[in-house]
Amino acid sequence: MKVIKYLEKPKLKSPILVEGLPGIGNVGRISASYLVEKLKAKKFAEFYSSDFFPSVIVNKDGIARLMKIEFYYYKGKNDIIIVVGDSQAMTPEGYYNISEGILEVAEKFDVKMIITLGGLGKEEVAKSPRIVGAVNDEKLIKKFKKYDIIFEGDILNTIVGVSGLLVGMAKIKNIDAICLLAETSGFPIVVADPIGAEALLRTLSKILEIEIDLSELTRDAKELEKKLIKTEEMQRKMLEKILGPEEEKKDLEYIG
Amino acid sequence: MKVIKYLEKPKLKSPILVEGLPGIGNVGRISASYLVEKLKAKKFAEFYSSDFFPSVIVNKDGIARLMKIEFYYYKGKNDIIIVVGDSQAMTPEGYYNISEGILEVAEKFDVKMIITLGGLGKEEVAKSPRIVGAVNDEKLIKKFKKYDIIFEGDILNTIVGVSGLLVGMAKIKNIDAICLLAETSGFPIVVADPIGAEALLRTLSKILEIEIDLSELTRDAKELEKKLIKTEEMQRKMLEKILGPEEEKKDLEYIG
Amino acid sequence: MKVIKYLEKPKLKSPILVEGLPGIGNVGRISASYLVEKLKAKKFAEFYSSDFFPSVIVNKDGIARLMKIEFYYYKGKNDIIIVVGDSQAMTPEGYYNISEGILEVAEKFDVKMIITLGGLGKEEVAKSPRIVGAVNDEKLIKKFKKYDIIFEGDILNTIVGVSGLLVGMAKIKNIDAICLLAETSGFPIVVADPIGAEALLRTLSKILEIEIDLSELTRDAKELEKKLIKTEEMQRKMLEKILGPEEEKKDLEYIG
Amino acid sequence: MKVIKYLEKPKLKSPILVEGLPGIGNVGRISASYLVEKLKAKKFAEFYSSDFFPSVIVNKDGIARLMKIEFYYYKGKNDIIIVVGDSQAMTPEGYYNISEGILEVAEKFDVKMIITLGGLGKEEVAKSPRIVGAVNDEKLIKKFKKYDIIFEGDILNTIVGVSGLLVGMAKIKNIDAICLLAETSGFPIVVADPIGAEALLRTLSKILEIEIDLSELTRDAKELEKKLIKTEEMQRKMLEKILGPEEEKKDLEYIG
Repeated sequence: MKVIKYLEKPKLKSPILVEGLPGIGNVGRISASYLVEKLKAKKFAEFYSSDFFPSVIVNKDGIARLMKIEFYYYKGKNDIIIVVGDSQAMTPEGYYNISEGILEVAEKFDVKMIITLGGLGKEEVAKSPRIVGAVNDEKLIKKFKKYDIIFEGDILNTIVGVSGLLVGMAKIKNIDAICLLAETSGFPIVVADPIGAEALLRTLSKILEIEIDLSELTRDAKELEKKLIKTEEMQRKMLEKILGPEEEKKDLEYIG
Repeated sequence: MKVIKYLEKPKLKSPILVEGLPGIGNVGRISASYLVEKLKAKKFAEFYSSDFFPSVIVNKDGIARLMKIEFYYYKGKNDIIIVVGDSQAMTPEGYYNISEGILEVAEKFDVKMIITLGGLGKEEVAKSPRIVGAVNDEKLIKKFKKYDIIFEGDILNTIVGVSGLLVGMAKIKNIDAICLLAETSGFPIVVADPIGAEALLRTLSKILEIEIDLSELTRDAKELEKKLIKTEEMQRKMLEKILGPEEEKKDLEYIG
Repeated sequence: MKVIKYLEKPKLKSPILVEGLPGIGNVGRISASYLVEKLKAKKFAEFYSSDFFPSVIVNKDGIARLMKIEFYYYKGKNDIIIVVGDSQAMTPEGYYNISEGILEVAEKFDVKMIITLGGLGKEEVAKSPRIVGAVNDEKLIKKFKKYDIIFEGDILNTIVGVSGLLVGMAKIKNIDAICLLAETSGFPIVVADPIGAEALLRTLSKILEIEIDLSELTRDAKELEKKLIKTEEMQRKMLEKILGPEEEKKDLEYIG
Repeated sequence: MKVIKYLEKPKLKSPILVEGLPGIGNVGRISASYLVEKLKAKKFAEFYSSDFFPSVIVNKDGIARLMKIEFYYYKGKNDIIIVVGDSQAMTPEGYYNISEGILEVAEKFDVKMIITLGGLGKEEVAKSPRIVGAVNDEKLIKKFKKYDIIFEGDILNTIVGVSGLLVGMAKIKNIDAICLLAETSGFPIVVADPIGAEALLRTLSKILEIEIDLSELTRDAKELEKKLIKTEEMQRKMLEKILGPEEEKKDLEYIG
């Protein structure tokens, strides 16, 4: 099953697509969700896939829904599409399929730039985490260096999961893309990291030329944390299935 | 391989589809099978899939048959389609595929409501098990609360497997759906739980506006139990493959 | 990849298809290979599939070839198609795919009956092994009982793998089918069992109304054994991947 | 996802295709990469696939790219296509898919011969490693024996992975193919083996009728080693997933 359901077809001017799915420290997902909330972005599409975990999520009222990825839009100085979701994939091939689904929407709306968000796992907790990046075209390095993004293969040499694949696959479609990772302890993986998310959003607000009120992030992050604990546990099991136990993940440096 | 073989094409008036596949305590399967027997429902379709366990089941006379899901119908005040089967899926994607196959039949017969049945694993045996539910649309909560069904995200926050996916996927097709789970010890998984099944059928008979003689359930359940032991052992192994060992399943709360 | 390569398109009169792939004690494969040799059956097709183990087999001269299933024919009182092969499948779905490929050839040549061969694992070595069977239609029981085949669900209640699936899937195509299993110690799985194969061929020769000189079977079986050791080791690993470690296989009674 | 992206469509006269992907001792990959460098071969195509590891590789400058297989060409006495890549496949079926992708390009350019390169794992380090071969047609044995290639089933009876499958699958397309393996310690798998690569290139230069300056191989191999360490670690995990832990791989004799 692969279903992309459009609730609305907004008119957007060469929007920037920002993606944040669950991953280490949930930094990407928290950042993207916070952005949706603060920008009052509007949902326009849902993406369902048999590459997600085979379950439904039941809310506090007893309403069940499929695992999904959601697309929101915001119209401003730069039009923005924000992609948030419940789940990465259950199989290696599934990661590619989900990235393809997201790119399908990106192409439909003539996206000019893709920014993927995530955490870069470090053994020690970073008090003021740095933002590490990877782009899909050399010309982007200069463009993004002014935002104090670190580009260095020694720090980041592999990006596993949708945030990495989107950047790589966008190249084939001639779409510029950058992956932004905030340093995070990411351990244990079930803990949401609002500090990393805050650092990521500071950088993101400059790139997107928007102001984001970050004061609620810590409070919201803690609330989110409660809601996400169960889902994250599931994500963790999925990741373990694909990448092996906790130790191995460290070698891979980044999941997301 | 995906084959839906129609033995008959009955004329049904916006039927209600009731599904019960193997799962924790086999509550869903026992309930649905009992319903077929008591309503003398008639088989009209069989669904074969390469997502099932790759084996045949041999009966006492030496007749072998593929793993399958069967569709029965009953014409009454409410027309009913009952779905029973041998097996859940072998892979995460398989769960989605099997749910899609069932929905294909549901759409063909213009099903107005889907009710999926299962057990909700509890560590302690429930003497008089409660019925916990999850729906795919808010309006259904009010409709079903009168049947003493509990809707509460704290008790049920994830439903893994076909019973959950059917509810979530029905939403995309605009079909109302509810998942009804009877509390059950569900441990060990090979034991059929007639107590949970009885509780489920009491609620179901009210919803379907039919009378079901439950007196034989205990006796039948025990007979069923014998027949199912071998098959269940196989299911258990399949579930373990997908969801990991016994402990992990508890975290997921519900399999079915 | 799925390739069925025809070397010749023989004209056959409603042939009987006999299948023997690797499995417990290799009884099925040895029997079918011996039949090919003794009947001087002629190869007419090869079936390659990405469901097999991803390797080539190199012969003593350094010639490499893909894993494959081969189809031979024999014209006589009853025309016969014999199916032998290197490998079962790597995934549960793969078992179904391979069975479908064999059925595709069966239908092309208007096969009237399918006989699948295998071993039924027993803890103790059977000195004079019994032949246990399962059919896909009740009417076949009477037909085959005269050959001293035992039909009894208590002895055989599940058949895992191609030999079982072929019987079950043939039913959908309205082709009569029987699975014949010789009792075999089948432990360790790498040992070829010429005793079981001999018992199987005695029964088979009656059904097919042909005479088969069995004197060389013991000698040939031992030679085969040497050749097959490496391949069998690979099969064992494949089966373990799908069905779990050695102990579990016993519960499943039969692999093949 | 399966994308073969052509950067150029060179005119080649019945070229010879040489393939070297990661594997034991990385002998195949090092040899093919060295050949690309020394022949100043020109890249004309890239092959992306969802059968690769779901990640991007980030270079020292922060440029991320998908896992890929690259095709280079060289025009000379014999036109040559050289295939190098980051990755084997993540699943058994994936090995077949990747081999099919390579063959697709081979057929497009009317390749007359395929030479696959790899290492043959030995417990002891070979000081002057022998070259062991396997062909897909008997007539090729005589042709290649003059190059001191050893053809002997006792030494090499199974070739797992793309280097083997390409040889087997080429046969179906009527393309001559040979797999050349240099003896290598291949342990631990993360170590690049320049000695094996040198032996392989000596033989290869005779077959291809080209001169290759091997003086830099040792130096280059060591540099390559550094670059590849991280990637190889990933390959190792992938191979372990498919083939099981280290011990089992020895039984299979060759991965590549």
